Amino acid sequence: PIAVSRNYSIATMGADGIGPEVVDAGVQVLKKLQQLDGGFELEFEDYDWSSDTYKKTGKYIPDGGLDKLKKHDAILFGAVGAPDVPDHISLWGLRLAICQPFQQYANVRPTKIFKGTSSPLRNAEHGDLDWVIVRENSEGEYAGQGGRSHRGHPWETATEVSIFTRHSVERIMRFAFETAQKRPRKFLTVVTKSNAQRNGMVLWDEVANEIAKEYEDVKWDKMLVDAMTCRMVLDPKSLDTIVATNLHADILSDLAAALAGSIGIAPTSNLDPTRTYPSMFEPIHGSAFDITGKGVANPVATFWTAAEMLEWLGEGEAAKKMMEAVETVTERGIATKDLGGKAGTKEVTDAVCAELEVVY
Amino acid sequence: PIAVSRNYSIATMGADGIGPEVVDAGVQVLKKLQQLDGGFELEFEDYDWSSDTYKKTGKYIPDGGLDKLKKHDAILFGAVGAPDVPDHISLWGLRLAICQPFQQYANVRPTKIFKGTSSPLRNAEHGDLDWVIVRENSEGEYAGQGGRSHRGHPWETATEVSIFTRHSVERIMRFAFETAQKRPRKFLTVVTKSNAQRNGMVLWDEVANEIAKEYEDVKWDKMLVDAMTCRMVLDPKSLDTIVATNLHADILSDLAAALAGSIGIAPTSNLDPTRTYPSMFEPIHGSAFDITGKGVANPVATFWTAAEMLEWLGEGEAAKKMMEAVETVTERGIATKDLGGKAGTKEVTDAVCAELEVVY
Ligand SMILES: CC(C)[C@H](C(=O)O)[C@@H](O)C(=O)O
Ligand SMILES: CC(C)[C@H](C(=O)O)[C@@H](O)C(=O)O
Repeated sequence: PIAVSRNYSIATMGADGIGPEVVDAGVQVLKKLQQLDGGFELEFEDYDWSSDTYKKTGKYIPDGGLDKLKKHDAILFGAVGAPDVPDHISLWGLRLAICQPFQQYANVRPTKIFKGTSSPLRNAEHGDLDWVIVRENSEGEYAGQGGRSHRGHPWETATEVSIFTRHSVERIMRFAFETAQKRPRKFLTVVTKSNAQRNGMVLWDEVANEIAKEYEDVKWDKMLVDAMTCRMVLDPKSLDTIVATNLHADILSDLAAALAGSIGIAPTSNLDPTRTYPSMFEPIHGSAFDITGKGVANPVATFWTAAEMLEWLGEGEAAKKMMEAVETVTERGIATKDLGGKAGTKEVTDAVCAELEVVY
Repeated sequence: PIAVSRNYSIATMGADGIGPEVVDAGVQVLKKLQQLDGGFELEFEDYDWSSDTYKKTGKYIPDGGLDKLKKHDAILFGAVGAPDVPDHISLWGLRLAICQPFQQYANVRPTKIFKGTSSPLRNAEHGDLDWVIVRENSEGEYAGQGGRSHRGHPWETATEVSIFTRHSVERIMRFAFETAQKRPRKFLTVVTKSNAQRNGMVLWDEVANEIAKEYEDVKWDKMLVDAMTCRMVLDPKSLDTIVATNLHADILSDLAAALAGSIGIAPTSNLDPTRTYPSMFEPIHGSAFDITGKGVANPVATFWTAAEMLEWLGEGEAAKKMMEAVETVTERGIATKDLGGKAGTKEVTDAVCAELEVVY
């Protein structure tokens, strides 16, 4: 019996390494939040798809799995990757095997200098670096095309083929301009490498020029991906929303997290903006097998991830309260080792739950 | 009449923007050095190939031009790129049109925190960050393949095709291991993205494993390009020699220069290690039309470039003296605006020439 009208069905999938631990922590905080808020209800259903499943069955996703998964409103994901499975198998077997059929074409990666944390840059303090990177998540360098001929011979030739379709470039560009439009500065930087790559990258440039006309209130500029890394380091305040290809944004978003000192706490959202399929939310840190099972994994990335999920579901107020509670706890120094603290996963999670009582 | 047995013929090509100014400064310092040293002789021949030539004749390189250029021992290059020529035209018309036929397959980019300059990173001082990035310079993402179909229609599809040949991956990997072997730490990091790109990038991984066996005294590790940006920011001391694809290294080397605070002073060498063709040496800064003709361009990158050229020609002692003189001048604060000084191109150049007299 559904007590409130705003009811959301969430698939949880911890997958590998510390994934299940942090997803558990996320669920605990989400349950607390829902109870305090009272305005919405979350139902959780857990999926045990992981590298263990793969090693036992040869598959990450059981037959018919995607059809089941499709029925949820959102997916809260942990991490995929195991020491004894090649990375390209786990990536393509689970994460991309969900993102690509579900056309989660917009990957959104916010980065900021969290209260209580510091940037490795001399010239950046809390508030100075506040970026959202929009990553094209359905094609480009991750289209999965290419091959190898003459294996092992001196004339062996391998190709990686990047695919850029006007349809997909237009949709990600619109999404990026809309993302920029919703932020106070309304400023977008479009990143390409069209001086060296004269086909898909020139298409990106052309589409940016066209789509920009639909968003006259958004200011925008263009950067080459190599020069962009310099600008991120030397002039972080000059940037706000950023859009780039699958690979370029993969690189830039890791750099962004490192520059913000948030590599262990940043979230990423794999969105289907048409809302035909559920979107998937995950912390960007990996499976971290070295600390798995020790109770020391930092759950903050998953809390931020959970807040992004709530926002996407339409529960923006609750998302804001979640982030308030999390930042207060971090600022107070209740943090795991990677943030310079001494707390374990449970302590941080309990502290956030307690702080939520104050916030509400 | 050649007075000494070590005689080198140098092609100079200032090309666009501040290129001719800094190449002139470089030639002045090289002439001073040769005069003081007395052990070798340099002959210079200037080539006026540039975006101006292109605008007048429709070509950057006149017919038969490469055959003439081929006869020199080295090429000292300024910068290519003009505001009224699309970047992909100037790049492919001049720089790549020399690098690719001359099989200058190894692009070498040293980065360090120069005396008298500072890093934007809190945790890096002079001596902490001392890297050589080896960039594959003949194929990969710059192979020039790919195309566009259905232009302008919603189903338009563009491709960028990266080509990796075993021959070229092996030669760059050997070159990188040899570069690492010559440095005190004998440590190489091989960068790929083989979790996402399963053909050419996996070939890179395989070849690295094979070639490593030929260099047992070199320690090495592997990084994914996205995680590499984090390591460069968070743990710069852990890196020494780095090898990566054409695009990855393009991005990483700009990041490296920014992190070292050396974006305006770094050199790059386009080498044909077989010495069949002349190698080409250039400062990494671009044509900088905003300051062209004002006498304020920083010549230090070109001095460092000239030193790299001398080293390659076998004049390692002279190269060392050049760098000694340059670092002393920079440390003393005789520097252009971009390095926080007030000097013009001529003042810095004269100061280096004067310092060379002290060094010799
Ligand atoms: C695990 C890896 C393949 C993945 C990617 O490249 O997409 C990761 O780096 C990321 O950024 O989410
Ligand atoms: C000008 C540009 C095409 C060039 C490149 O990408 O190779 C530059 O960025 C470089 O690093 O030399």
